[in-house]
Amino acid sequence: MENLIRYAEKLFDEVEIAVYRSRDVSASVELNEISMASTRSGAVTIVRGIKDKRLGLAIVDSDEESRVKEAIEQAAKMAKLNTRDEKWVSLPEPGKYREKPKPNYELKEASPDGLVEMLVRGIRLAREKDRNAIVAGGEGGVSWEERHIVNSHGIDVFQEGGAAFFYLELVGRKEGVVTPGIFDFDAKRSLDLDVEGVVERAVQKVGWAYNVKASKNEEVPIIFGPWAIAGLFSYALFPAFSGERLVKETTPLAGKVGEKVASDVITMYDDPFHELSLEPVIADGEGVPTRKNVLIENGLFKGFVWDNYWAKVYGTESTGNGKRDLNSGGISIGFHSMVIENGKRSLEEVISEIERGYLVDGVQGAHSSNPDNGNFAVTANPAFLIEDGEVVGSSVFLIAGNVYELLGQASEVTKEQTVMPSGTTIITPFIKFEDVKIAGK
Amino acid sequence: MENLIRYAEKLFDEVEIAVYRSRDVSASVELNEISMASTRSGAVTIVRGIKDKRLGLAIVDSDEESRVKEAIEQAAKMAKLNTRDEKWVSLPEPGKYREKPKPNYELKEASPDGLVEMLVRGIRLAREKDRNAIVAGGEGGVSWEERHIVNSHGIDVFQEGGAAFFYLELVGRKEGVVTPGIFDFDAKRSLDLDVEGVVERAVQKVGWAYNVKASKNEEVPIIFGPWAIAGLFSYALFPAFSGERLVKETTPLAGKVGEKVASDVITMYDDPFHELSLEPVIADGEGVPTRKNVLIENGLFKGFVWDNYWAKVYGTESTGNGKRDLNSGGISIGFHSMVIENGKRSLEEVISEIERGYLVDGVQGAHSSNPDNGNFAVTANPAFLIEDGEVVGSSVFLIAGNVYELLGQASEVTKEQTVMPSGTTIITPFIKFEDVKIAGK
Repeated sequence: MENLIRYAEKLFDEVEIAVYRSRDVSASVELNEISMASTRSGAVTIVRGIKDKRLGLAIVDSDEESRVKEAIEQAAKMAKLNTRDEKWVSLPEPGKYREKPKPNYELKEASPDGLVEMLVRGIRLAREKDRNAIVAGGEGGVSWEERHIVNSHGIDVFQEGGAAFFYLELVGRKEGVVTPGIFDFDAKRSLDLDVEGVVERAVQKVGWAYNVKASKNEEVPIIFGPWAIAGLFSYALFPAFSGERLVKETTPLAGKVGEKVASDVITMYDDPFHELSLEPVIADGEGVPTRKNVLIENGLFKGFVWDNYWAKVYGTESTGNGKRDLNSGGISIGFHSMVIENGKRSLEEVISEIERGYLVDGVQGAHSSNPDNGNFAVTANPAFLIEDGEVVGSSVFLIAGNVYELLGQASEVTKEQTVMPSGTTIITPFIKFEDVKIAGK
Repeated sequence: MENLIRYAEKLFDEVEIAVYRSRDVSASVELNEISMASTRSGAVTIVRGIKDKRLGLAIVDSDEESRVKEAIEQAAKMAKLNTRDEKWVSLPEPGKYREKPKPNYELKEASPDGLVEMLVRGIRLAREKDRNAIVAGGEGGVSWEERHIVNSHGIDVFQEGGAAFFYLELVGRKEGVVTPGIFDFDAKRSLDLDVEGVVERAVQKVGWAYNVKASKNEEVPIIFGPWAIAGLFSYALFPAFSGERLVKETTPLAGKVGEKVASDVITMYDDPFHELSLEPVIADGEGVPTRKNVLIENGLFKGFVWDNYWAKVYGTESTGNGKRDLNSGGISIGFHSMVIENGKRSLEEVISEIERGYLVDGVQGAHSSNPDNGNFAVTANPAFLIEDGEVVGSSVFLIAGNVYELLGQASEVTKEQTVMPSGTTIITPFIKFEDVKIAGK
C-alpha cells in the first residue's frame, strides 16, 4: 500500500486508499427445503483523493496494484472535473487505537456445509415441534472481512474478523388460521449458533399466533421486542444522533445535550467492543479510532456522533462513526454496535405483571418514520395479547406517535439482551412502555 | 464446460451449469458533483442438479474449473439433504434459437471516463438551462454480460452483449417552492446516449413543477408517462401474466384467455428482439429459446408466460420466460423486454386536446399493489395539470383503483416509445386514460 499512497500523493493534496477483502458463505431455505448454498469472495478498493478541495472517488473490485493505480488515476480525473468543496478541511490524522480483539479464524474457513446442516436441523426441529408450521424461509451465513485503510497523513490500520448469523421464518396453518411470518434469529462471532433456541422461540410465537384476537382502540402497556425496537429506532430515532443532521438542522435533538429525552431506564450507546458486538472494529471507515459513544444515559441526551467531514465542518472531532458504503464508496455517519442497556428482570417476570397489554414482536412501515421530529406510524405485526400475566393470542394494530414520547413512557428493560444483525447492529433488551395508545385494526 | 457437465452427471440425474461473466462501469452524481466512478467485473457460476427429484443449487463467484467442481459437489450434498419434489419433471431440452443479434463491442471496453464526461455535460447543461435547478442525483452506467448455459440434455448456449443507461434527477428551488425530484433517462445498446434530450425533458418538467396547483377530487382524463406506467404495471399487472400464478390460482386472468381485459388501443407483448430492447437474448435463464409472447392484443388477453418448471407442472411448454436471479440462483417467471405498442400521434397532440386533466410522470406506493386482483392505490407525483391543451403546473394526488378498469379506460397511446430500464425493461408510449377518478391531496 505504501507505494500506492506515494504514487497517489503525486496526483492529490491528500489521499486515502481503503481495501476490503471479504468472503461470504451462505445457505437459504424456501418452503422447508434448502434452496441455495453460495460461496462468494472478493476485494474492493476505494480511492478517495482531494486536490484543491476537489474530491475524486473511484471504486475498483480488485486489490491488484495495476487496477488500484487505474482507480487512483480515475479519481484524479474526476477531482479535476468537480468544483471546489469549500467546506472540505482534511482527511483524518492517525489516532490511538484500542487493542484489537482476537479474531475467530474458524469463521474465515467456514463452508456452506455447516450452514446447510444447521438449516436442515432447524427445519426438522421446527416441524417436529409444530406439525402445522412450515419453514417459509430462512438463511444461515458466515462473513469474513479484512479491511486495510491507509491515508497520506499516516493512518495505516488493518483489521480482520467475521460473524455468523442464522434465522428462520415460520408460518403456521391451523383450523383456517394462517399466521403471519414469524421470525427468530441468532448472530454471534462464532459458528456456535443457537439453532434450538431460534426454533423454540419461533415455534412458541407461532403457537400464540394461532389464537387470533381482535384488537381495539385502547391505552395499554406494551413490550417491544428486539426486532420491533430495531425496526422503529433505526428509522425514527438513530438518525437524530447524527452530527450531519445537527449541521443541517434536521434533528429534533439540536440544543438538547444534557436534557431529558427518555425515561431514566433508557441508556443507549454505540460501542463496537460490546461483548455481543458482531464487528469489534478498532477504527471506522476512514481510520479514525472507534470508542464508546454514549447517546442517552438514564434518559439524558449526551451528544451527537460524527464522521471526519462533518466534525470538521462543525469544528469538533470525529467520534469514529464514519461508516463506508461499499457501493457508493462514500463515508456517512453511522453506528457500529448500538447497545441499549439491559435490566434485572426477565421478560417472563415483566409479562407476569401485566393485566392487559401487548408484546410487539415486529413492526411494519417504520421506514416512513420522520427522524426530523420522531413521528412514526407503524403496524404492530406480529403482536401478542397479554392478559392476566400471560400471552393468550395474537393481534394486529396500529401505533402512531412520537418516538421521544414513547421513550418517556419506558418503564423497564429486561435482563435478556439480543443482537439484531440486520442493518445497524443493535444489541437490545425487551423494553416495556406504559400507557401506549393503540388503534385496533 | 463439457467436462464439468460430464463430472456433474456422475452425481445427478440431470444437471445445469450457468456461467455469467459481467463487467460494469458506472459514475454517479450527488448535488451537482461527480460523487463516484466505479469499475466492477466478475464471474458467477450457478449449478442446478437434480437427483431422485431432489434439487441441489450452488453458487460460486468464479468460473475456474476447481471452484465450479466444488460448487457441483456442494449442490450434490444439498440434493441429498432435501426431500423429493414430486412436481419436478425435467430440465429443458435444446430448442431452435433465433439468429443472435450482433453485439456492440464498444460497450465491452467502456471506461468510466466517458460516463463522467456525460454527467458533467449533463450537470452544466441543466444548470445553464435553469439556474434554480440543482442536479440532486444521477448516474451513467455501461454493463456487459456473457452468459453460457449448458445442461446435460444438450443445451449449450453462449450469448454476450451490453447496454448503457443515463439518468438525472433535478430539484428546482424558486420563490419558496421546492419541486419534487424530477427524473429523466435514456438507455440503449450503444454509448450514444441522449444527454441533451434527458436534460431538456427534465428541465421542462422542473419548469412545470415551479407552478404548484392544488388538486381536488375529480374525474378527468389522465396521461401516464413511461416511468409511471413501469411503476404501476410492474406491480399491479405484469405478475398476473405468470403461469405460476395460474397454477397457484393467484391471478385474476385465470380462464380469461381470449377475453377483453383492456381497451382496443392496448397491445402488449414480451420480446427481447424489439429494436429498443436492452438485452436481445436468444435464450432465457435456463437455455430455452426466447420468442415474442403476445399478452394483450387490441385489448384481448392472449395467454400466460412460463418457465420450464411451471410449464411442465401445468402440462404446457416454456415460453422462454425463465429468468435467473444471480443472488438466489433460482429461476422464476419474468419478462425480457415488455413492449406496449405505440400509436400515431405525439404526446403534444394528445395534450393539446385535453381541456382539463393531468400528465402523471411518476407514481409512489405502487409496490403495495395487489396483483391477485389488480387493485392499487398510488400517489401521483410528480404530476402535471393540463388546462386548455397545455401543461400549466404541477400537482400531487391519489389514484386508487383497479388496473384492469384503468386499462379499459385507455383511449390512446402516443407515437413516442421510451425504454424504462429499471427492474423489468419496459418499452412504452404515453397512455391516455379517460374519466379517471382522483382524490385531491
